Amino acid sequence: MLSFQIIHKDGLARCGIITTAHGNLKTPAFIPVATRAAIKGLSAQQLKEIGYEATLANTYHLYLKPGDEIISKLGGLNSFMAWDGTTFTDSGGFQVFSLNGRLSKTDDEGVDFKSYIDNSSHRFTPEKSMQIQQNIGADIIFTFDECVHFNDSLERTKEAMGRTHQWTLRCLKEHQKSNSNQALFGIVQGGRFKDLREESAKFIASLPFPGYGIGGIFGDPTKEIHGIVKHTMTFLPEDKPKHMLGIGSVEDIFDYVECGADTFDCVLPTRLARLGYFFVRPESGGNVDNKFRVRIGNSQFKEDNSSLDPNCSCFVCKNYSKGYIHHLYKVKELLFYSLMTYHNLYFYCKLMEDIRSSISEETFKILKQKWLEKQEASE
Amino acid sequence: MLSFQIIHKDGLARCGIITTAHGNLKTPAFIPVATRAAIKGLSAQQLKEIGYEATLANTYHLYLKPGDEIISKLGGLNSFMAWDGTTFTDSGGFQVFSLNGRLSKTDDEGVDFKSYIDNSSHRFTPEKSMQIQQNIGADIIFTFDECVHFNDSLERTKEAMGRTHQWTLRCLKEHQKSNSNQALFGIVQGGRFKDLREESAKFIASLPFPGYGIGGIFGDPTKEIHGIVKHTMTFLPEDKPKHMLGIGSVEDIFDYVECGADTFDCVLPTRLARLGYFFVRPESGGNVDNKFRVRIGNSQFKEDNSSLDPNCSCFVCKNYSKGYIHHLYKVKELLFYSLMTYHNLYFYCKLMEDIRSSISEETFKILKQKWLEKQEASE
Repeated sequence: MLSFQIIHKDGLARCGIITTAHGNLKTPAFIPVATRAAIKGLSAQQLKEIGYEATLANTYHLYLKPGDEIISKLGGLNSFMAWDGTTFTDSGGFQVFSLNGRLSKTDDEGVDFKSYIDNSSHRFTPEKSMQIQQNIGADIIFTFDECVHFNDSLERTKEAMGRTHQWTLRCLKEHQKSNSNQALFGIVQGGRFKDLREESAKFIASLPFPGYGIGGIFGDPTKEIHGIVKHTMTFLPEDKPKHMLGIGSVEDIFDYVECGADTFDCVLPTRLARLGYFFVRPESGGNVDNKFRVRIGNSQFKEDNSSLDPNCSCFVCKNYSKGYIHHLYKVKELLFYSLMTYHNLYFYCKLMEDIRSSISEETFKILKQKWLEKQEASE
Repeated sequence: MLSFQIIHKDGLARCGIITTAHGNLKTPAFIPVATRAAIKGLSAQQLKEIGYEATLANTYHLYLKPGDEIISKLGGLNSFMAWDGTTFTDSGGFQVFSLNGRLSKTDDEGVDFKSYIDNSSHRFTPEKSMQIQQNIGADIIFTFDECVHFNDSLERTKEAMGRTHQWTLRCLKEHQKSNSNQALFGIVQGGRFKDLREESAKFIASLPFPGYGIGGIFGDPTKEIHGIVKHTMTFLPEDKPKHMLGIGSVEDIFDYVECGADTFDCVLPTRLARLGYFFVRPESGGNVDNKFRVRIGNSQFKEDNSSLDPNCSCFVCKNYSKGYIHHLYKVKELLFYSLMTYHNLYFYCKLMEDIRSSISEETFKILKQKWLEKQEASE
């Protein structure tokens, strides 16, 4: 099913290994998002070549297309997408909320929503989410939760949290009934409210989950949520893995690893690649101010024969120039998306490797400082 | 510069090796088209992995974007696209004709045309085509020709052929002036008229070219052109390589190899991949009637766990199911284009390997018959 071994600690940060039926996953890890059972523009083999050990697919999208039953008939998610590493699926709760917005209709039993593809009507319940995720067959799955906007009121957030807790119990019951060997993670909610987060963490921690997800923590410009998440973490069992749903940026990854987070999933590196942004390491000018990213469309790159990042040793940086990738971007060549996605995912993979090494060497804070220090205004 | 060694002959069909500054190219060879210095959806490394030794880029497209001078500054086509094999460029004549159609204006000096990107005005002359191709820097380049519609009249075709011959002399002069070590191939025109083809072949053969292109031979539903091309070939020196511009289909490749053709370029396998067609070998049901292709969008493939072609051993067929690729097609995932393109180019690469082997073993006619025999209507 799932085991988690902590190898080394540096403060609250830790490196470890999650083991499932599909092998080992070294943590802290970034988990690239394969929304519709494919990383946009990369094959499963390329994902492995970069160095990844896990990927996360979206239950909402796969339920609609091709349908979870088809994936089951074709051998489950790993077989379907030809990926032999660890797999995650989210519960669909966030997508129903974010893609349908106020148009979805939630009651205590579940959520009615419209398909983003053809506007057809569907209903998710905690039990249904479990059944779909069981058909898809990922190694690590999540409980069905009700998501709120980060700025929603205390009252609204509390109501959704209460419902999430009830749904969590129903998910657990449905999961136990199934005899599935998937690992079900319970999700902590509570929005931006410290008391709610604490209450939610205590409740979820009281249930027999092999790991936890922390949901709904993005959208805070003030970064106050960092302190709240740190507080929340203290109520979750130390010896179990914690996944940060939908996180994150380089800065968030450092901050949450520091609180004890183990895994992260986010579309940021892949989506930004397609939009024309490539990531660069601090040695190459990446910093908090530029968010470690550069626009390949800059006309200055037209005749630039250097690689995207001279301090990156990925396949793209070893072979291709900024001038060539700038050209591919300008003419919208398909290869553009593959090369940029490859580089950005390599950047994240290497970042996590560096973080794991620093924890092993108890130099995590130094690494964090090196990456996140503000740049002096220079000439 | 260029050398060509004929290794074995089987009738007029022959296998050989073209050697340029970028290594060897085993012939008969199919040359995938990298229109804008990229195979759509594949990296240069993937092209090499499939087994290709050469690629052809389009002068017209690269002149407009990013501009031939930029490619020159970035080290020339091979360096620009990170491809270490043989490179070809066409002359731009066909693109000016096909993308601008009747809107381009041709006089004895050259052609005025509008950019397909922004409608800006440009002019190609034989000299300009040579200069652009020199900047791009491919190993094998072509003379600038005036193309006609296959069904154009004798008079129109004769006029264009005459102009093509004059332009050929100007190209040769410009090329000799440049001291370039590129190999310039002269193009035979003459449309669907046997006498004109003969006249053109004799004229082009009289000039000091290291190889030849045969232009304007597609668009004939009656296949009468096959006999005319066969006749044409007899007027070209046997010991020099012959390239079939814009060809072809599986059937055309067999027919022209049989006449002594050595290389072929065509967008068919890559374009059809993107449109949702995959190629299958005769052992897997491919034949002249179905043109060796199958639509991945067929709903019968929704739950099909088998590979695109059970007799194909490409990376895609070894890893992915029709069901998965059908799903990627339906949701328009970027990975779809890469996987299908990879498979189709592998099919063509293997076809040419089989053709070369059969020539070595003097069984070319048997192979041709096996591939092109009409299927009995079966139950």
